[in-house]
Amino acid sequence: MESNQSALAHSGEFGFIRKLTARLGQGPGVRLGPGDDAAVVSAPDRNVVAGTDIFVEGRHFRRDWSAGADVGHKAAAANLADIAAMGGRGTALLVGLCVPDDLAMGWAEELADGLAAEAAKVGASVVGGDTVAGPTLMISVTALGDLHGRAPVTRGGASPGDVVALAGRLGWAAAGTTILSRGFRSPGALVAAHRRPAVPYEAGPIAAELGATAMIDVSDGLLADLGHIAAMSDVAVDVDQAVLEVPPQMRNAGKALGVDPLEWVLTGGEDHALVATFAPDVPLGPDWRVIGRVGAGKGVTVDGDVYQRPTGWDHGRS
Amino acid sequence: MESNQSALAHSGEFGFIRKLTARLGQGPGVRLGPGDDAAVVSAPDRNVVAGTDIFVEGRHFRRDWSAGADVGHKAAAANLADIAAMGGRGTALLVGLCVPDDLAMGWAEELADGLAAEAAKVGASVVGGDTVAGPTLMISVTALGDLHGRAPVTRGGASPGDVVALAGRLGWAAAGTTILSRGFRSPGALVAAHRRPAVPYEAGPIAAELGATAMIDVSDGLLADLGHIAAMSDVAVDVDQAVLEVPPQMRNAGKALGVDPLEWVLTGGEDHALVATFAPDVPLGPDWRVIGRVGAGKGVTVDGDVYQRPTGWDHGRS
Repeated sequence: MESNQSALAHSGEFGFIRKLTARLGQGPGVRLGPGDDAAVVSAPDRNVVAGTDIFVEGRHFRRDWSAGADVGHKAAAANLADIAAMGGRGTALLVGLCVPDDLAMGWAEELADGLAAEAAKVGASVVGGDTVAGPTLMISVTALGDLHGRAPVTRGGASPGDVVALAGRLGWAAAGTTILSRGFRSPGALVAAHRRPAVPYEAGPIAAELGATAMIDVSDGLLADLGHIAAMSDVAVDVDQAVLEVPPQMRNAGKALGVDPLEWVLTGGEDHALVATFAPDVPLGPDWRVIGRVGAGKGVTVDGDVYQRPTGWDHGRS
Repeated sequence: MESNQSALAHSGEFGFIRKLTARLGQGPGVRLGPGDDAAVVSAPDRNVVAGTDIFVEGRHFRRDWSAGADVGHKAAAANLADIAAMGGRGTALLVGLCVPDDLAMGWAEELADGLAAEAAKVGASVVGGDTVAGPTLMISVTALGDLHGRAPVTRGGASPGDVVALAGRLGWAAAGTTILSRGFRSPGALVAAHRRPAVPYEAGPIAAELGATAMIDVSDGLLADLGHIAAMSDVAVDVDQAVLEVPPQMRNAGKALGVDPLEWVLTGGEDHALVATFAPDVPLGPDWRVIGRVGAGKGVTVDGDVYQRPTGWDHGRS
């Protein structure tokens, strides 16, 4: 069966790319999709938001833990969350793929399907890319997005007195990663969160509309990412531990594995929740809930104290 | 000395990225540069042109043949040439970097300098990126560009009767690659062309302004890339061999190495010349010279005959 054959050995680069791009539908914002020297994407407000992430096998994903479609969803989500964290909405993805000899065509097709399906959640399309043979399976994703005429929400605008608010969930992907790394496959909901994050995309533009003063997506861990806001805004941030949710299945998994589940919540990345700061009098609506407060000073505290364990992942070291 | 130390081991990911981004100046089209979740780049005509390429060590470059700055220039050039081939001008680069343990900080800094210097040739800036540790040195570059209100020039618009015209040079990089692969280091001009292409960036927007019917950049080889135009436009293309330049040093190198230099000219990629088709009555100006003709039919011929050797590189196989 073709799907069991080595992808590049079977098709060559051009054939491989043709097969993948044939799977990619194009949305209304795409003026020119895959197949030419470059794509052309609509940028209605005369600015384009753009970010890039790289995903390396063995470091950011494992083929024995995640299907191709899972990796596609996760890689697209990480980039589209960055666009949301600026207050934008994703319009397009460009994908680079470095393919080792042992990669099956079916895995690559699933990857393309996953990327396209995650992009479709915000109305974005996979508009182009590049595929090369190489020793390490690696995926680079660039997301483009639109700000709808609003200024970007940076990490640098928080002021003392602002509230810190959260959209989305924390610790789920980290719990799933711990479960998989110990050789277990359940609870299913936590393992699924490792494979495919549930990103609150809409909350990003909503926050911008509400006047968020700073925003970031939680990819390194809540405390580490709030640390970026604190550093860039030259403020201190305190998190109120009591309002952070630890759902029962995460509590049970923590008990079974000997992990304090609050560690997952405070320091786990990859759920791509959004955290933002707002002036204290802004009515936040249903997407955002207050989890802390901005003060004068430096650094991030939990209930007023410095957190004693590592606050997140430095991807370059871990 | 710091520049001799392993890049990531010394600095961690965040420190590494900080050091690199500190080297990157930002042009006037950049509303928000590196350091946040995503960058924001001006897209004056409400469209953005975007393309991605991946460069893998051992396959697209060798550290014993090219300095970090050379690889930066070459990687940026390949992507900015794709933007030019649509008739656009590059505005921004996003760079993903997969860094093995043995990479020296100095090499990465040179790479960043090379990327920024090549981008500056068209007024573009390196606005963002991602760096991860991984076993294989790999660089992904996404270029963004602006069309200045013109329609993109695709590969699909050539008609019988059009002329085929060339901007830039052919075969230089391929000759340099052959020279290096045989263990030589001269002639210097050909080796330099392997390391850093001389891309005729301005010729792309000029062609679009002149009404080019189709355009592509020569990255796989003249005949292979004209084959893409022929296939997408559903036409035949004939190249007039007599008008293709084979400079004396290339002729001499070919004699010394036992290679027909015309093979470099017809099938060598990586100089990123531009080829375009125009209606026969268009006065082309100094940037473009006619090298062939479009006819009815299929495929690419040289002086009316099918070329008998491989016409270019399928990067996925070679």
